[in-house]
Amino acid sequence: MPDPRPERRARLLDLLEQHKAGAMAVTHLPNVRYLSGFTGSNGVLLVTQRGARLFTDPRYDIQASQECDCSTKICAGPVWPELAKEVRRQGLTALAMESDKVSHDQWLASAAELGKPVRLKRAKGLVEGLRVIKSASEIEAIRRSVRLNSKAFQQALGKIRPGMTEIQVAAEIDYRMRRLGAEGPAFETIVAAGGRSALPHARPTNQQLKANQLLLVDMGASLDGYCSDMTRVVHLGPPPARARQLYDAVLEAQLASIAEVKPGAACAQVDAAGRRTLRKRGLDKFFTHSTGHGLGLEIHEGPRIGRKPEGVLRPGMVITIEPGVYLRGFGGIRIEDTVLVTETGVEVLTSTTKEFLVIPT
Amino acid sequence: MPDPRPERRARLLDLLEQHKAGAMAVTHLPNVRYLSGFTGSNGVLLVTQRGARLFTDPRYDIQASQECDCSTKICAGPVWPELAKEVRRQGLTALAMESDKVSHDQWLASAAELGKPVRLKRAKGLVEGLRVIKSASEIEAIRRSVRLNSKAFQQALGKIRPGMTEIQVAAEIDYRMRRLGAEGPAFETIVAAGGRSALPHARPTNQQLKANQLLLVDMGASLDGYCSDMTRVVHLGPPPARARQLYDAVLEAQLASIAEVKPGAACAQVDAAGRRTLRKRGLDKFFTHSTGHGLGLEIHEGPRIGRKPEGVLRPGMVITIEPGVYLRGFGGIRIEDTVLVTETGVEVLTSTTKEFLVIPT
Repeated sequence: MPDPRPERRARLLDLLEQHKAGAMAVTHLPNVRYLSGFTGSNGVLLVTQRGARLFTDPRYDIQASQECDCSTKICAGPVWPELAKEVRRQGLTALAMESDKVSHDQWLASAAELGKPVRLKRAKGLVEGLRVIKSASEIEAIRRSVRLNSKAFQQALGKIRPGMTEIQVAAEIDYRMRRLGAEGPAFETIVAAGGRSALPHARPTNQQLKANQLLLVDMGASLDGYCSDMTRVVHLGPPPARARQLYDAVLEAQLASIAEVKPGAACAQVDAAGRRTLRKRGLDKFFTHSTGHGLGLEIHEGPRIGRKPEGVLRPGMVITIEPGVYLRGFGGIRIEDTVLVTETGVEVLTSTTKEFLVIPT
Repeated sequence: MPDPRPERRARLLDLLEQHKAGAMAVTHLPNVRYLSGFTGSNGVLLVTQRGARLFTDPRYDIQASQECDCSTKICAGPVWPELAKEVRRQGLTALAMESDKVSHDQWLASAAELGKPVRLKRAKGLVEGLRVIKSASEIEAIRRSVRLNSKAFQQALGKIRPGMTEIQVAAEIDYRMRRLGAEGPAFETIVAAGGRSALPHARPTNQQLKANQLLLVDMGASLDGYCSDMTRVVHLGPPPARARQLYDAVLEAQLASIAEVKPGAACAQVDAAGRRTLRKRGLDKFFTHSTGHGLGLEIHEGPRIGRKPEGVLRPGMVITIEPGVYLRGFGGIRIEDTVLVTETGVEVLTSTTKEFLVIPT
């Protein structure tokens, strides 16, 4: 497999030309990693027609030269003065920067450092736009992450019982992920029991699990930098009819949205399919968020799968499909898989069962 | 104990007056939490002479009203247009914003949203400045976090043996923290074995621990939002004389710096004390970072305890003291405690032994 990084940088340079900037200082670390391979916590990548160069600090001396396929510059002090020197040396007159990622102070400081002859150009989402379509090796990395995540869920499931706190369940999940080789969770694991499952973004608390409760788990692993994302809802003890009805409704909505996933499908149409099935049951008003999002080096990437018309699906996109309903007092149900847009349709990467699982109490 | 939040906001308003802005839009979440109590992931706090108001989204409807002592506004769409409306309604002509935290795009968008009559004022570190001195209840929260962290270390220590990977040790530590009730680690737990301990910011890898190795563990918990921070180095099997000499030298440096901690002491003097003892042994050139930093709602807060003259210690500051020496090829030793500046001197909050512990192999 050829190294994808030179090709990625070439495509970025094409985009930059359209933005009338021949060069870019890339600061957002997932973008730096995508373009250069560097995984450290401090680094700016300068991409110009003459090549790419990573500016970092002495902590990453060895690591940077091992990871990057481009030249590296280890800066004893701050990296910006060194980067500005290089920009001037190359005689560049315009430099793109991620104006949505760089702080206002950093922007002003960079402009001052570069001086009058170099114009800073606001650039937003350029690299993120490239990242939306995953390469074969990226898809393979996500696949491994999804598989590990499902395995960690399966292992943790065997430990869950009434009396444990939400935080303890989350600890068990994260522990399993890392024992299986993940760097860690891709986001703060959500474990929400009973009525708290109605809060779509609940952080785990010290509340104890009880019999006859819903338990919502939203978890993802980071493995070799790539994310996975899955939500499952289980019941402690046999679920009452109401919970089962809601579960079936959400599952039907999820399957309806998945069925719409194929190249050329509008993202909004994928969202609408699930929402429509919930409407038939009068539940659409409890579905208070979007259907899904892309993921990769970050847990939230493009495209957004929501109500707004935001483009169409293309082969190589990896997205979540995660409808949910949230009833105050009763609880919430969400079912989420990570899926791949293939050349012809969809592949659900998540293999964990979507049966309504019962934890013995 | 009186609710500290109104007092904090009053002090912020005093600072704002010095900056010729009567109001501030606080966006940095630890600052929002400090001033209002809100712990959600999306919220902007508007602080004006007329009071404070939190702007957030419908996910945090219930949570915001439970957590905040000020008024809240739930915005169906983006929060900024609503906030701008309120700013205009109050007839404000200048609004401070955290220019070091807000992206350049957000800054420009806010300026456009607010319109000509309202001038945006760059404000940096105002709330962070207040946060440097901890209240009695904050000190108590940090104390609990430090205690939990030490307990998690103790529990994990019993599990460490050759053949485990660094990631597995980190997983064990994080698991123990959370079983003990922490939200999780306050930063990515550092576990570095053998030669890797010479990298001050090593991320744990899948490398296995072996007998006759150094093992450096740098860990901190987040409990009720407050951080702890501790580093210990242990040895797998009996340490050779060289490791013991280095350990003793670092411990001596750490104790020398701690002995300097008292109200009125210059931060640079605390740093110098440890550095001086290392110099006597020719080791100061291997001490490649600062002596410490404040901590609280964030793991890195003011003051910085380094070589540069950056102010003096005051009662209520909570800082780390963490000298280290790093020898390429051999390994690194760092010893770190969390300490409190009291009215009369210093209290070391970390109770974990600083003996050079040996893991049986």
